Amino acid sequence: MIVVGVDGGGTKTKATCIECRGGVGTLVSSYETEGSNFHNVGIKTATKRIKEAIDRCTEGRTPDLVVMGLAGLDSRYDFNVLRENLSSVGKEVIMDNDSFFILYGETRGKNGVIAISGTGSVVLGIKDGEKVRAEGAGWFLSDTGSAYWVGRETLRYLTRCLQGIESSSMLSETVMRSLKLKDLDDLIYWTYHRKHRVEMVASISRLVDKASSRGDEIAQGILKRASREFGRSVLHVVRKTNVSEVYVLGGMFKSKAYMEEFKNLMGENNVRVLPVDKDPSMGSVLYGLDKVNCKLNGY
Amino acid sequence: MIVVGVDGGGTKTKATCIECRGGVGTLVSSYETEGSNFHNVGIKTATKRIKEAIDRCTEGRTPDLVVMGLAGLDSRYDFNVLRENLSSVGKEVIMDNDSFFILYGETRGKNGVIAISGTGSVVLGIKDGEKVRAEGAGWFLSDTGSAYWVGRETLRYLTRCLQGIESSSMLSETVMRSLKLKDLDDLIYWTYHRKHRVEMVASISRLVDKASSRGDEIAQGILKRASREFGRSVLHVVRKTNVSEVYVLGGMFKSKAYMEEFKNLMGENNVRVLPVDKDPSMGSVLYGLDKVNCKLNGY
Repeated sequence: MIVVGVDGGGTKTKATCIECRGGVGTLVSSYETEGSNFHNVGIKTATKRIKEAIDRCTEGRTPDLVVMGLAGLDSRYDFNVLRENLSSVGKEVIMDNDSFFILYGETRGKNGVIAISGTGSVVLGIKDGEKVRAEGAGWFLSDTGSAYWVGRETLRYLTRCLQGIESSSMLSETVMRSLKLKDLDDLIYWTYHRKHRVEMVASISRLVDKASSRGDEIAQGILKRASREFGRSVLHVVRKTNVSEVYVLGGMFKSKAYMEEFKNLMGENNVRVLPVDKDPSMGSVLYGLDKVNCKLNGY
Repeated sequence: MIVVGVDGGGTKTKATCIECRGGVGTLVSSYETEGSNFHNVGIKTATKRIKEAIDRCTEGRTPDLVVMGLAGLDSRYDFNVLRENLSSVGKEVIMDNDSFFILYGETRGKNGVIAISGTGSVVLGIKDGEKVRAEGAGWFLSDTGSAYWVGRETLRYLTRCLQGIESSSMLSETVMRSLKLKDLDDLIYWTYHRKHRVEMVASISRLVDKASSRGDEIAQGILKRASREFGRSVLHVVRKTNVSEVYVLGGMFKSKAYMEEFKNLMGENNVRVLPVDKDPSMGSVLYGLDKVNCKLNGY
């Protein structure tokens, strides 16, 4: 039988096809294309890319089981839209938020917690098969400590600098130069007149980390505050899940100041921090293989 | 000669026409129509409404001087767009942000500070003819302590309630009932799936004030924090302007908890709070009349 795992993220969509015979799986092939978060690219494009990835990796055969971890699947509404468009891609189709399968790839269904902080942020815990969540409700309602959150705080600080309320710093100068801004009017134009762009705001976090690693205290302060506030959400899920370790993933953890502060807070609460080091796109595949009792060499 | 003052706000546009003879002004008429913040209604509609209000109140005559206080005039970009569309409404046309003329209506050009907290928030000080500003750069970059800010904080709190991180309260229950939400999925749908609506978010502040006045501590806490954070921006402008009083205006000051906290903070810093009690739409008219040395009975 054929099992396909799909990792549908914001920037890429990867399908991995496994053929199972006698309880042993063999990799047929994997296929990667552009992102399929339907909130960003629309449901039509997302569906097209996911179907294409599955079709290419199975070489046109209909899979017996497709397991999809999808970045935009955050609510019942999302689930209904995605199911309607994707329920025909295999004989059986399972879908969930990508965080669920990334955690599964590490724990194989045991109790555990994963904390992801990239453009947005989400914490997912599994306790006896039940889900416990924090954050993950998007840029407006949550995503505390995410790259978007860091970018927003930085642009608000920059606004106060340009109004003379706060002193300028290496950080404010770096952002001005990088966004090619002369004054507050330019910043207002950048912010509103080409509509609100979550990814553009999030990308400013890289400038913050750069200034932080060069010793800018404002930048370090923003990153530490982001990490600590996200950490509080993580601790909540850790306590509810009753585990003593947390898997972490996402661009924000590549920031030294952010990771250090996070490790400190977790350490103070006797929680170990474990970076996800396996291929996160394998989680959905492994979920599917475990479901049909099929073993894959090396996993 | 004919002098027209325009007050172009988010919800209404009012033009007031004065005829000046021998240094004495007489009210010809005033005309009120819908809002003309071009960020909300587009430049075409805003222009149409402003022109219509002027034309109606002058009974078709071309004004010698038009002074316009416009809510959406926040940057050089805004100024260019508005000037391009409105420079022909009178022989001479002066425009500025509405806060400038509301303050002028109270101080007649002397040093002073006005703090406005409605849907957004802005602080404007005048010192020896020079402007000092804080906030006023829109929902994303600033507007600390505004109705939008209060609404956003409340919806973020509600998200944490629905995730079980914070306890529910009269406030969370009121918001759920008022927005007809059953769960977090509904809140996510309300927030994102009909795009981001600043006015809808701001309108939640009324529910917060209601819960606050009924004794809800979470609601009181949000309002006090909003007031205190806005107050810090106000104190900055007060110090730079070197005055000892601040005029306040806007829906947020109708909230008892908000106003009390604001008065406390100002009191601690020896700053008197003076509510704007004159018709705020008269500021632009008075600016125009003072410019041409024309007196209006009662002002």
